[in-house]
Amino acid sequence: MDQTIVEDIIKKVMDQMGASEAAPATSTAQKATCDESIPVELSGRHVHLCEEDIQELFGAPLNYVKELSQPGQYLCKERVRLIGPTGVIDNVAVLGPARPKSQVELSLTDARILGVKAPVRQSGDVAGTPGIVLTSGTGLAGLQEGVIVAARHIHMSPADAARYGVSDNQKVHVYMDGERPAVFKDVIVRVHKDFSLAMHIDFDEANSCGLGRNAKGKIVGVTQEA
Amino acid sequence: MDQTIVEDIIKKVMDQMGASEAAPATSTAQKATCDESIPVELSGRHVHLCEEDIQELFGAPLNYVKELSQPGQYLCKERVRLIGPTGVIDNVAVLGPARPKSQVELSLTDARILGVKAPVRQSGDVAGTPGIVLTSGTGLAGLQEGVIVAARHIHMSPADAARYGVSDNQKVHVYMDGERPAVFKDVIVRVHKDFSLAMHIDFDEANSCGLGRNAKGKIVGVTQEA
Repeated sequence: MDQTIVEDIIKKVMDQMGASEAAPATSTAQKATCDESIPVELSGRHVHLCEEDIQELFGAPLNYVKELSQPGQYLCKERVRLIGPTGVIDNVAVLGPARPKSQVELSLTDARILGVKAPVRQSGDVAGTPGIVLTSGTGLAGLQEGVIVAARHIHMSPADAARYGVSDNQKVHVYMDGERPAVFKDVIVRVHKDFSLAMHIDFDEANSCGLGRNAKGKIVGVTQEA
Repeated sequence: MDQTIVEDIIKKVMDQMGASEAAPATSTAQKATCDESIPVELSGRHVHLCEEDIQELFGAPLNYVKELSQPGQYLCKERVRLIGPTGVIDNVAVLGPARPKSQVELSLTDARILGVKAPVRQSGDVAGTPGIVLTSGTGLAGLQEGVIVAARHIHMSPADAARYGVSDNQKVHVYMDGERPAVFKDVIVRVHKDFSLAMHIDFDEANSCGLGRNAKGKIVGVTQEA
């Protein structure tokens, strides 16, 4: 067989796969259909509160301060103290609007300080998670459950999803181009018509790759579900 | 041309590259020659002290407590307080033996608490890094420089290096199989006859992938230097 043809085939295969590295079994050669960078936002620790806990803590509705990147979500003037078995964290942001269930989103570093075994979960998936005590200076609320480490995720609109060739709840691998570059595997894609394109990670994740402001991620693969 | 031959070539190329994903330009298809897992050790914040600073802080030699994983390195009974522009961290481990220059190894989370702009550096490479104040309860030492975030690295013996097909100062990509799996890019390999096989990462890095005790890493690629 003509050696040129072989080389041509090999080149085409390699081009299709990109400059490659061996990867674990969850990966495939499947690529996202768009390699535009995705803005990365660092999520600090924060709480979402239900109406009942808002009343217990503040005795009044939440006060709007400023809009956040996802439409309809906003930072409030109110702050809370988190009290765990082994530690306390003060001055924690409260996000509005009120939600059906209160939820506390921490990094693993925070969870270690508080002494709470917070699992990595998607926002809203709080069944069976640890509880915690919140105080406001004037009120106190005890959560039976609701403490999580938010699973890193990418918000996108249906149009973004079409552009990247991914769908709601699909998992992707994202290259983070920080001072200590890394690929985060199995990042959940969340598609909703109201979502702005943004990847959300916590400070442990940001620090692990030395990311600063205006960080970007790039989808470099799609998780192959077993 | 016979389609079977083409498929056979493609299969061979893909086998050689492993199940693949697109990767950034620093990666190549080059693989380590051994896919045995590497034990991962989490490095907490700690300091190494020169003889002069040991005298200023404690007025006496360091007291041995226990051997660490790398031969000759040991944990000491002594502890220090780190004092930075915006914060203080107490009860920081001192490692022996004495070194020619004092050095403080932090996570980026620690550096943020202290208010010190610590760069990511290899151990010993402290020229131009920020200083800090150390106190012991009885003494005080002011470092003009020496505060770093230790670059993640893999210790290995020459025999290990031969087995993995890597060399001193080479950089590799390592798959971390935690609750939030990730690939750490550009991890420095350090080869010395006295080194035991171990990958050292800090708590930001461990938390970012949800790693616990007995964590393992696997070399999945080698950085192609420009």
